[in-house]
Amino acid sequence: MQSISTTAKKIRTMEIRGAGAIARAAASALKEHALSLKTNSLSDFNREMEKAAQILLKTRPTAVSLPNAVRFVMRCHGDTVEEVRASIVSSADEFVKRSEKAVEQIGKIGAKRVRDGDIIMTHCNSTAAISIMATAFKQGKNIRVIATESRPMMQGHITIQQLNDAGIPTTLIVDSAMRYHMQDVDLAIVGADAIGVNGCLVNKIGTSQLALAAHEARVNLLVAAETFKFSPRTIFGELIEIEERSPDEVLDTKTRKSLKNVVVRNPAFDVTPPEYIDLICTEVGAIPPEMAYTIIRDYLGWELEELGV
Amino acid sequence: MQSISTTAKKIRTMEIRGAGAIARAAASALKEHALSLKTNSLSDFNREMEKAAQILLKTRPTAVSLPNAVRFVMRCHGDTVEEVRASIVSSADEFVKRSEKAVEQIGKIGAKRVRDGDIIMTHCNSTAAISIMATAFKQGKNIRVIATESRPMMQGHITIQQLNDAGIPTTLIVDSAMRYHMQDVDLAIVGADAIGVNGCLVNKIGTSQLALAAHEARVNLLVAAETFKFSPRTIFGELIEIEERSPDEVLDTKTRKSLKNVVVRNPAFDVTPPEYIDLICTEVGAIPPEMAYTIIRDYLGWELEELGV
Amino acid sequence: MQSISTTAKKIRTMEIRGAGAIARAAASALKEHALSLKTNSLSDFNREMEKAAQILLKTRPTAVSLPNAVRFVMRCHGDTVEEVRASIVSSADEFVKRSEKAVEQIGKIGAKRVRDGDIIMTHCNSTAAISIMATAFKQGKNIRVIATESRPMMQGHITIQQLNDAGIPTTLIVDSAMRYHMQDVDLAIVGADAIGVNGCLVNKIGTSQLALAAHEARVNLLVAAETFKFSPRTIFGELIEIEERSPDEVLDTKTRKSLKNVVVRNPAFDVTPPEYIDLICTEVGAIPPEMAYTIIRDYLGWELEELGV
Amino acid sequence: MQSISTTAKKIRTMEIRGAGAIARAAASALKEHALSLKTNSLSDFNREMEKAAQILLKTRPTAVSLPNAVRFVMRCHGDTVEEVRASIVSSADEFVKRSEKAVEQIGKIGAKRVRDGDIIMTHCNSTAAISIMATAFKQGKNIRVIATESRPMMQGHITIQQLNDAGIPTTLIVDSAMRYHMQDVDLAIVGADAIGVNGCLVNKIGTSQLALAAHEARVNLLVAAETFKFSPRTIFGELIEIEERSPDEVLDTKTRKSLKNVVVRNPAFDVTPPEYIDLICTEVGAIPPEMAYTIIRDYLGWELEELGV
Amino acid sequence: MQSISTTAKKIRTMEIRGAGAIARAAASALKEHALSLKTNSLSDFNREMEKAAQILLKTRPTAVSLPNAVRFVMRCHGDTVEEVRASIVSSADEFVKRSEKAVEQIGKIGAKRVRDGDIIMTHCNSTAAISIMATAFKQGKNIRVIATESRPMMQGHITIQQLNDAGIPTTLIVDSAMRYHMQDVDLAIVGADAIGVNGCLVNKIGTSQLALAAHEARVNLLVAAETFKFSPRTIFGELIEIEERSPDEVLDTKTRKSLKNVVVRNPAFDVTPPEYIDLICTEVGAIPPEMAYTIIRDYLGWELEELGV
Amino acid sequence: MQSISTTAKKIRTMEIRGAGAIARAAASALKEHALSLKTNSLSDFNREMEKAAQILLKTRPTAVSLPNAVRFVMRCHGDTVEEVRASIVSSADEFVKRSEKAVEQIGKIGAKRVRDGDIIMTHCNSTAAISIMATAFKQGKNIRVIATESRPMMQGHITIQQLNDAGIPTTLIVDSAMRYHMQDVDLAIVGADAIGVNGCLVNKIGTSQLALAAHEARVNLLVAAETFKFSPRTIFGELIEIEERSPDEVLDTKTRKSLKNVVVRNPAFDVTPPEYIDLICTEVGAIPPEMAYTIIRDYLGWELEELGV
Repeated sequence: MQSISTTAKKIRTMEIRGAGAIARAAASALKEHALSLKTNSLSDFNREMEKAAQILLKTRPTAVSLPNAVRFVMRCHGDTVEEVRASIVSSADEFVKRSEKAVEQIGKIGAKRVRDGDIIMTHCNSTAAISIMATAFKQGKNIRVIATESRPMMQGHITIQQLNDAGIPTTLIVDSAMRYHMQDVDLAIVGADAIGVNGCLVNKIGTSQLALAAHEARVNLLVAAETFKFSPRTIFGELIEIEERSPDEVLDTKTRKSLKNVVVRNPAFDVTPPEYIDLICTEVGAIPPEMAYTIIRDYLGWELEELGV
Repeated sequence: MQSISTTAKKIRTMEIRGAGAIARAAASALKEHALSLKTNSLSDFNREMEKAAQILLKTRPTAVSLPNAVRFVMRCHGDTVEEVRASIVSSADEFVKRSEKAVEQIGKIGAKRVRDGDIIMTHCNSTAAISIMATAFKQGKNIRVIATESRPMMQGHITIQQLNDAGIPTTLIVDSAMRYHMQDVDLAIVGADAIGVNGCLVNKIGTSQLALAAHEARVNLLVAAETFKFSPRTIFGELIEIEERSPDEVLDTKTRKSLKNVVVRNPAFDVTPPEYIDLICTEVGAIPPEMAYTIIRDYLGWELEELGV
Repeated sequence: MQSISTTAKKIRTMEIRGAGAIARAAASALKEHALSLKTNSLSDFNREMEKAAQILLKTRPTAVSLPNAVRFVMRCHGDTVEEVRASIVSSADEFVKRSEKAVEQIGKIGAKRVRDGDIIMTHCNSTAAISIMATAFKQGKNIRVIATESRPMMQGHITIQQLNDAGIPTTLIVDSAMRYHMQDVDLAIVGADAIGVNGCLVNKIGTSQLALAAHEARVNLLVAAETFKFSPRTIFGELIEIEERSPDEVLDTKTRKSLKNVVVRNPAFDVTPPEYIDLICTEVGAIPPEMAYTIIRDYLGWELEELGV
Repeated sequence: MQSISTTAKKIRTMEIRGAGAIARAAASALKEHALSLKTNSLSDFNREMEKAAQILLKTRPTAVSLPNAVRFVMRCHGDTVEEVRASIVSSADEFVKRSEKAVEQIGKIGAKRVRDGDIIMTHCNSTAAISIMATAFKQGKNIRVIATESRPMMQGHITIQQLNDAGIPTTLIVDSAMRYHMQDVDLAIVGADAIGVNGCLVNKIGTSQLALAAHEARVNLLVAAETFKFSPRTIFGELIEIEERSPDEVLDTKTRKSLKNVVVRNPAFDVTPPEYIDLICTEVGAIPPEMAYTIIRDYLGWELEELGV
Repeated sequence: MQSISTTAKKIRTMEIRGAGAIARAAASALKEHALSLKTNSLSDFNREMEKAAQILLKTRPTAVSLPNAVRFVMRCHGDTVEEVRASIVSSADEFVKRSEKAVEQIGKIGAKRVRDGDIIMTHCNSTAAISIMATAFKQGKNIRVIATESRPMMQGHITIQQLNDAGIPTTLIVDSAMRYHMQDVDLAIVGADAIGVNGCLVNKIGTSQLALAAHEARVNLLVAAETFKFSPRTIFGELIEIEERSPDEVLDTKTRKSLKNVVVRNPAFDVTPPEYIDLICTEVGAIPPEMAYTIIRDYLGWELEELGV
Repeated sequence: MQSISTTAKKIRTMEIRGAGAIARAAASALKEHALSLKTNSLSDFNREMEKAAQILLKTRPTAVSLPNAVRFVMRCHGDTVEEVRASIVSSADEFVKRSEKAVEQIGKIGAKRVRDGDIIMTHCNSTAAISIMATAFKQGKNIRVIATESRPMMQGHITIQQLNDAGIPTTLIVDSAMRYHMQDVDLAIVGADAIGVNGCLVNKIGTSQLALAAHEARVNLLVAAETFKFSPRTIFGELIEIEERSPDEVLDTKTRKSLKNVVVRNPAFDVTPPEYIDLICTEVGAIPPEMAYTIIRDYLGWELEELGV
């Protein structure tokens, strides 16, 4: 259970973070766990794997990539422990490979939407979104990026580091300066933690403000999202849960204790409605947000079946 | 010159901050300076005072309360040093008194717009805005306030301290969570650094995002602004300059030096268009933003004359 | 006290209704009451008149024409009972005359905004709004009016009667059909119960829905409002109170009693924001809603003084 | 022909009303009619059945559930009267069963979108919409519903009765008070008479006003619609006909006759554009309105074939 | 009558065009006519002048500068022909001087709103608007202008000639390309033919499309308008008449005759609502559009008196 | 190569114009070219055909019908020159036939959306759009069309000629008068040069202004587009290139040379976002714009395969 509990902890504390990275880590942990289980009883094996899956699933509630990855890996087939183990290992490897390939593919597709000279605004830190910008820059397009800090966890610092290393001229701003700088912006690009059946985007808190300000200024918003970010359960009406993280990330305990009438709210994500999204770039093509239903049917159909529809 | 340079430094470093406090400090510094000048020559006296005024005027460019206060105090009359000094002292005292009275008056007027049970969102730290909330709360209205951090200088921490001390239940959020929480909000209240002739509001960076999100959710926005926050020069077309503060407030020097392709932008204010403002509460009454022209004509007319119109 | 209590009752039960009619009735009742008082003591006289005024003021809270009329009449001058009585009589007569003249003047001004062939939508029953339509029709303009029922009190039935009698082709619709019919409409015209300092319109429940639907379809909204419909107290921040009328108007008592989990809400008015209003026609000219402040200052300035500003 | 003419009459007079109930009644009437026909000639049988179908189809033009049900039942197969009769009976039974199951399924799916503490606004009377609210309430969610009267036929009275019986705290308002109360609302839920290929909603007159007011206040609108409410013919461009009902429902004959210049318009439905709809809950899942085309292709494909595409 | 009829013809044929030029030409023609009249009878003189005024007033209906100029000149005082003649000459001279000075003053005020690097879009040909751009350019601001053709009379060709001569880099586009190019634009500047009491702008056909596209893209619209462009009569409700010019300007007579089912519409102006205007630059200061009422009261008050209010 | 170079030239010079006509001309040219090739070597034949295809593809970049047609024809099968030639001839014939049939089908489908009495606005010249109007008119619907000139190439003149010949009452306006006339309009209908995967419409410059003005006035916009107007490549992120045509179309060379600071921009198309489009009428049915992805998958799937997905 070593690999499972270690990975679960790293996800919870955000040592492993980003919806894609979380999904890949979960798949790999399940693989390792399968390899480490000593039992010869299939039912014991399955029970242990299920237990491991549940531990991973409970780490963070919002990023749908996590249950999508876990379910993908756990669709194992076989009549013996060995067969099932082999099935899990192969599914986990396939998931990781597909996921990495997806980022590259999204980079290629999204880069076509970037024009030479574009000023791009981004928020938080998204591997897929950066893949688009880096690909466009490598193609010789003279772009400039405006990146936000993304309080409270300051993932924007990772973004400016990555853009800096890619050689892309970058401007760092505080989160509340999005609208101020929007008038210079030609294109907005963000990643996704989850996408609902109606095309709504669940992403880092503040994304919906960026989307609103972009819409107000007639700036297109591009979302970079692998297909495993789409949430099949929203077809059954389910609301995507918004993770509320510790108040300590926002205000230190001592100060909070000294202020009796003050509480801290720290939701980690918000919801951007589809009408503020121009296009979602997935590894299987660019789509309008309203096509989320079709993407789920076509690429996550096996999940729908498992959910019993 | 002691009082002048000390005050100027405190304003620059934001030890003294808030448009009202800055204006009162400037008026008081001019008074002290007038009292400390030893010369008997009226032209020397006037020259010295003018020099002092210029030093104060250069400290921060955006808050129009500063030049309004300086000009109010410097409209001195008299044929002798003593007469002019007395005139300055009296004007400075009057300005400070009016300014304090204005905050109280705005509190009374604005509190009438607050209904029992209202959830109010505010941004940054405004004495006049807090005066409204505190007055309403003292009247027994059961309100709750959602306050933002206001990166990078975290003036929101002052706000939650003041609301806490007033006994008002308060929720602290990061700046990027405005739109997320807006759906629970009944009323938005902010202060003002400056108001232009067309009713646009210049205030702490992020205010225009709050205004946009409020407008999107049909939430009224109330601006608390003393008449000396209105900018007469905008009648002559002048744009209110947006102060760009040091990048050190956003990212430490060392990190910045290590990132060759990254720059930091740190504008301290943004501009909210009048169509997102429901009402401006001044000490002479509540007005729609478009009435800014009339307020300037009626209450700052002496300035227009001095500007030569 | 006969005239006062009778008039108060008629206003409360809506036997006398419409903001203009209420105001005129109140002025006349005060006049009659002044004439009927037998005392020779000025202080007794004044106390009795004040008591009468208070009774009238409490009948209905929303229509600002009522306190405006009462205050206009009660600004009486004189050192003797006879002088004060004469002053009241003369003020009351003047108010009634001005009020009637205003409706005619608004009819003339508003009719210029009506073009030959216009299809006009109106809501509830407004003498001033009908004055505009009737004037335009008399000028030979070939107009057609769509009028709503105005549940629960069905004042729309009065409107279609009056339009019918004026010979104007009229279509009656249910209130919920406003948006359906809006696509055929060229102009919307409504009356006013009160106008706030920021130009917001308080009028019969449903007016703000009509305004919203008109705005959505790029149809101009014209408000017909005498200057005594403007509310001076809103300058001091006061919210215009929305009268909540008896649930009996909406659902009979027996049914209500049988439904334990059901309550009825019956607000009589709603608030239309100024951005949905194109023009307010007053007897002193057509103005944009944002000019309400100036109208109050110029035409109801005496009230501001009495309120102590 | 007894069952057919009786059912047709009840549908026309709205004794049977609501798009689902109408559809089920039509299916049942066709079944009864099939069972009652005495002929042994297949062509006679078919002709009689077709005649019956036509009578039912002409009762009310807007609710697309009616032709969908009729066509579903009439897709009968068989070489003999008995075979065809059996086919009709079985289809009718299946339709009724599916329809009832759909309401339950929609209740489950939609209830997931309802959060504890939500204030919900609804309009007219929709079995599927009430199924959502009742399901959420039974799950222990503390909801409150604001229901409109729905003039002229006052179906809102049925709604408050049903909500009352379910134990849900309910507020009744007049139709024109939708926008006034919208500021307190967290979610809007309505049913559907028909859904067009572009996701537009045809429903009780006033629905589009509710949708507009919800959109203005950033309140999500949920539509509860069985798949048989979707209109295949709109794929061929057909406009859904809006039924115009008798003026007697709005104004009594005598009054109407006395008003020579007055006519009454009484459209029973209006059209809500897809941009005001957040999600449509069907029994096969929640979808964005733009997915209507796919739903029609996937679940009503047999109709498209019969229409000859 | 030479000067009057010549001038009238030139205005009608658009040899003299532009609201300012028309006004100055009319004033000058009245002056010349006054100087040329031989009569000694004051009543004859007045009658002749009135006749001349009427001829000028009828040339073009929309530009309010024309009646404003004529009325300004015709407010003559005096008891003898000589006195009245002198009064007219002096008024005409004053009008021309004020008008020229106004253009310069607007240039100065408006130029302050132009920032270094701005890309400006303009429509048709406005002396006052070009004054702003030329002043900003002379101040060393590095601007670029996008100018439309302005079909059918192609006044855009005059604009690009003037901008070219001022040395300003200019791009010519067809009228229908406004929205396409709007995304690169930082500021829109247009002139005015008339401004109504609610701040609506009447200007060259197409202006309202530019304003709409600017609004959609969050681009500010600046209107350059001398005070004599404001229409006092709109206070009395009057609609500003939109001149319909000859179809020959759009399609040649022969083609038109050959197309029996085709007519040509050629309105010369359209109406931009105040909500699409950021600021109006007049020679007495920059104002929000809603302040039009105050400008009329303060600067054209003499007209209101003459109109009998 | 005769047919190819002649056709290419005619397309470039717009002697052949309109996305449908271009596509059919290209298909026919390829057919003729295939028939005229003398070689017996399959590789020579294929190389020659490919060369021809490339020449045609380079004529105009925006209209996606061109590559769609070329690829449709070039999907030839066969092992011998004769077989491939036959395949090309048959594909070209099929394309032309389908294309002509599509216009007729769109006319039928679209005409159902036109109501008796509708005033329709159209822009530029679209065979499919005119097919809708002509079909509706032939069905006896009393319609009127407002057509724009469409500077610089004045294709509006072709439109009014065609509408005139069909007997439809037509009004010609300049392009900048769209918003002025929009208030009288009931429906807007335009054609398409290309449709992107998110439903955006690429069409004649000015179309997006018409769409914006229609949206502002709640007027539905219908797009007439054959399925071969949809762009499969946009699924891979590709932006549709906007053709920039010669400045000579806008301003004569001599004038341009005389104006050193002036350049002319002449983009031939602009992009209308899907939120301004109500419905796209294709020959396979009416769809909301967001369904473009599905149309491409279902009807242009062979292209996706060839593009290697």
